[in-house]
Amino acid sequence: MITNNFYSQENVGPFEVYNLGDFELEEGGIIPDLKLAYNTHGELNSTKDNVIVIPTWFSGTSKDYETYIGVDRAINPNEYFIIVINQIGNGVSSSPHNSPEPIAMANFPKVRIGDDVRAQHKFITEKYGIKEIALVVGGSMGAQQTYEWAVRYPDMVKRAAPIAGTAKNTVHDFLFTKTLNDAITSDPGWNGGNYSTHLEVADGLKRHADIWAVLGLSTEFYSQEKWKLFGVDSVEVFTEGFLQPLFQSLDPNSLLTMGWKWQRGDVSRNTGGNLEEALGRIKAKVFVMPINEDMFFPVRDCEAEQKLIPNSELKVINSICGHFGLFGGEGADYHNQIDDYLNELLAINVVEPILE
Amino acid sequence: MITNNFYSQENVGPFEVYNLGDFELEEGGIIPDLKLAYNTHGELNSTKDNVIVIPTWFSGTSKDYETYIGVDRAINPNEYFIIVINQIGNGVSSSPHNSPEPIAMANFPKVRIGDDVRAQHKFITEKYGIKEIALVVGGSMGAQQTYEWAVRYPDMVKRAAPIAGTAKNTVHDFLFTKTLNDAITSDPGWNGGNYSTHLEVADGLKRHADIWAVLGLSTEFYSQEKWKLFGVDSVEVFTEGFLQPLFQSLDPNSLLTMGWKWQRGDVSRNTGGNLEEALGRIKAKVFVMPINEDMFFPVRDCEAEQKLIPNSELKVINSICGHFGLFGGEGADYHNQIDDYLNELLAINVVEPILE
Repeated sequence: MITNNFYSQENVGPFEVYNLGDFELEEGGIIPDLKLAYNTHGELNSTKDNVIVIPTWFSGTSKDYETYIGVDRAINPNEYFIIVINQIGNGVSSSPHNSPEPIAMANFPKVRIGDDVRAQHKFITEKYGIKEIALVVGGSMGAQQTYEWAVRYPDMVKRAAPIAGTAKNTVHDFLFTKTLNDAITSDPGWNGGNYSTHLEVADGLKRHADIWAVLGLSTEFYSQEKWKLFGVDSVEVFTEGFLQPLFQSLDPNSLLTMGWKWQRGDVSRNTGGNLEEALGRIKAKVFVMPINEDMFFPVRDCEAEQKLIPNSELKVINSICGHFGLFGGEGADYHNQIDDYLNELLAINVVEPILE
Repeated sequence: MITNNFYSQENVGPFEVYNLGDFELEEGGIIPDLKLAYNTHGELNSTKDNVIVIPTWFSGTSKDYETYIGVDRAINPNEYFIIVINQIGNGVSSSPHNSPEPIAMANFPKVRIGDDVRAQHKFITEKYGIKEIALVVGGSMGAQQTYEWAVRYPDMVKRAAPIAGTAKNTVHDFLFTKTLNDAITSDPGWNGGNYSTHLEVADGLKRHADIWAVLGLSTEFYSQEKWKLFGVDSVEVFTEGFLQPLFQSLDPNSLLTMGWKWQRGDVSRNTGGNLEEALGRIKAKVFVMPINEDMFFPVRDCEAEQKLIPNSELKVINSICGHFGLFGGEGADYHNQIDDYLNELLAINVVEPILE
């Protein structure tokens, strides 16, 4: 096991850990004593029907959603019991660098979105006896998990809001993620996954960050010098002083575990490859929420999926930050859009059976 | 000097070579005996006013424009004297791998778009006595050179059609090109530019190709499986059987020379950094021709420049292939758009002084 302070509670905020025991994976093999790190906000009510589940995105942790949660927000801890769950491999939950043998580092198994959602389901049903989820919401890979929740547990999920992500990963995104992965694995310091510290992979992580700089934002973000939103005054400081150090602080194998998983996110695995059938299973009221300037989850890709979901609406979020709009750098300009849509969604009564 | 058959006349079509002698560069230093490789179509008329100049794009050669030229096309050799000029460093004109010491390989100097255009000007005035150009047209880095021609020699250039490129490179494109460059230089086989064959840089060139696969096409290209346009039946064959071998056949230092140049293309270098003033100098009738699905020269970036050009119009080319629409994979669907706009442009009388 390798120490990486990025994933400490001092840095990513308080979390608790639930031990799921030995967990079988879709790709075969098990994670012994699978540990999900999570944090909660608010209280579970007596009818256990005020639950919001939020899965994390690529490179992210439960901390990233702090700005989405508040008493003045749609995701309101005075009303809801909010469970933010770190995805497997994200560096906080069971991950290559924090797992003992036989699954340490390069030996960490392949994990799929379906594994995450089954693990999350087991966790919240076992620990809290939850039978109904008012809302599953998440961005990017969090959206992948949101879709998987809605398809896999249609009677349990009442509402779903996938933000800036797809139910079935696109070919374009597969290729994009490949460049991110290759930036890391091409660094001799990565050493097949058996480095002794993530610092040995600093060059690869820097190139990884540089690719994010191109696809993660938008052309207009740069044209309008919107790096100022991140509190920096030049593009050099934004890329070299912010993005590069951010990704260089992460664990390479963790990013690769998530990258592999992201590439293969696909709810149609539940229906023998039939996406229409998979999305047709969803009983939740769904707001599909792409970001207008997203370069790799474009609105049209998300809209094509939305049209296959029976009780759904397309709600486009405007952010010049593109995919990284998820970070909330625009403050209220971004979060108010999220809140307005989520308030609208949460106000919709979906207790009765949905007529198609 | 290194042998690379990609750049042979058997492969890139017939070309002639003009030796410009010692050529001073904007960044300092000289290229001794600068050689421009070019080919021509049609005949120079007696009034020497039927000239079309076409500069090459990144990674490209004069061969790439063959499909743009024909007796049934706007660029018609029965009417025009067409000079296709390989940019400096492209592997055919003077380039790192084909130059002797003191500028061989890693010692090849930094070259700018302004150097190319000054060299091309010297070449066509010296060799042919040309004083007027009916049209400068080029795609991508060819567009950069087209803009430079129109700004630098406003009385000489009557018409200009920059396709899928900008007059001043954007910050976003600088970052994109950086990832392309880094894919090569991160390969230990590159060896600071002193490899003994480009085959030693195969891994870096492969990653370079993979980044092109993400940005060079469009999300919709992949959604609609348009790789079929390139005569292949799967995305794997498109990326691994077409794009990767294509870029792996090129010279790494050549790509880096062009990449450095592309990053810094900027006509406002002629006016102390004032882009409005630079573009305001243009006397040519200009059709600014971005591609609608281009991921890194988006229409809005090109339109912003078009608005600064006195006698100009925005003519958007539709191509699901994005930037690689330039390759003409869509055949007539693409080339007919180009021809319609160029025919319209060439029919405009710009002999008289332009009233602003």
